[in-house]
Amino acid sequence: EIADAVEALFARGQQPLKGKRVVVTAGPTHEPIDPVRYIANRSSGRQGYAIAAMLETLGAEVHLVSGPTALPDLVGVHMTRVETAREMQAAVAAALPADAAIMVAAVADWRVEAMGQKIKKGSTGAPALTLVENPDILAGIGHHPSRPRLVIGFAAETENLLVNAQSKLARKGADLIVANDVSGDVMGGANNRVRLVSKDGVEDWPEMTKREVAWRLAHLVAEKLAGSEKPL
Amino acid sequence: EIADAVEALFARGQQPLKGKRVVVTAGPTHEPIDPVRYIANRSSGRQGYAIAAMLETLGAEVHLVSGPTALPDLVGVHMTRVETAREMQAAVAAALPADAAIMVAAVADWRVEAMGQKIKKGSTGAPALTLVENPDILAGIGHHPSRPRLVIGFAAETENLLVNAQSKLARKGADLIVANDVSGDVMGGANNRVRLVSKDGVEDWPEMTKREVAWRLAHLVAEKLAGSEKPL
Repeated sequence: EIADAVEALFARGQQPLKGKRVVVTAGPTHEPIDPVRYIANRSSGRQGYAIAAMLETLGAEVHLVSGPTALPDLVGVHMTRVETAREMQAAVAAALPADAAIMVAAVADWRVEAMGQKIKKGSTGAPALTLVENPDILAGIGHHPSRPRLVIGFAAETENLLVNAQSKLARKGADLIVANDVSGDVMGGANNRVRLVSKDGVEDWPEMTKREVAWRLAHLVAEKLAGSEKPL
Repeated sequence: EIADAVEALFARGQQPLKGKRVVVTAGPTHEPIDPVRYIANRSSGRQGYAIAAMLETLGAEVHLVSGPTALPDLVGVHMTRVETAREMQAAVAAALPADAAIMVAAVADWRVEAMGQKIKKGSTGAPALTLVENPDILAGIGHHPSRPRLVIGFAAETENLLVNAQSKLARKGADLIVANDVSGDVMGGANNRVRLVSKDGVEDWPEMTKREVAWRLAHLVAEKLAGSEKPL
């Protein structure tokens, strides 16, 4: 496998990210409805964990802020396990300063407005859950006073994303948005197909394993951070 | 451990449930909101799996209908994996006829009214999720034309349950309701504390491991089914 070969090259002492701090988020968030119920999403965390592991292989000091996943802790990586979007936001902020932030987690856009106690059957028909917008973690870090030099966000691909890519980059304060095609079984699956949206345009990557996506992206991070100290 | 000792006694050839068919449900259900999001609950499936395994040890032919869990399939047990309450209901019906049904799953009371596509941010403020009542699987089997002779349901303990126990038993068509105290970390934890609500009253069991609850309950099932062929 190509990735193995190249990884071996790097492992042979080449650590281009030595001395760099990178914050990565991964997995879903769980937003409680009541003490026993919550809203979840199908993110497995595999893409984010693969990226964190690859960055660590390349020498970076990696902080992985993970939502609830079935994946074991990564050796050599600072792990913070969180449940909700707000906890994730706080953990990301606590991991600053950093040279780069790669926000891979599938953060819930909404949480449920506090309901007090366990919702109950009967009485007056079906309840409605009122949703409240969650903080936008990517935009928060993209516009943070201690903004990392490189900010990369992941986003579920929609027509809208590609059409409004430039304005979205600015709104998020991101250097790069990695658009995931989530129409198949990407969430939870082994493969991924992504497009990279930057101020330079859109770059399509063919379908590959999440590990290969991780390798290419970690390589890109190393390349970007190796450049001048100017904003990217 | 007591349970081990008694289990060993049974394993020594005593299979009081030999020739009996038992349907067990376990785990949470996941109710989709859109292609990537869903409503879940904190049930791990451990109590239901422990009960299914113990019934199998006692000689029963066990059908385990399981919501999404991280637990491996049980050897010697017919497994059906489902996601939603409606899928669980269909799988339970397909497993009939049976001598006993033990409904341990934490079935979502509601599902989300079909939303068509991925809910989106922006536009006109926060969306509201309209909930629709799910089928009551326990009541369905309790009043089924092919009702098993013994029907046992699990329920999250509420004041309401104990106060209205008798009417609840009748409404559900159940012989026994096992009330779980879910106030601590019972959901997902190793221990459980239950009360058994039947027409004879309420019986408190002390806190014990889920495996011990399973053993005692499987023993009770064997006792009940060993009796006359009349309804229990």
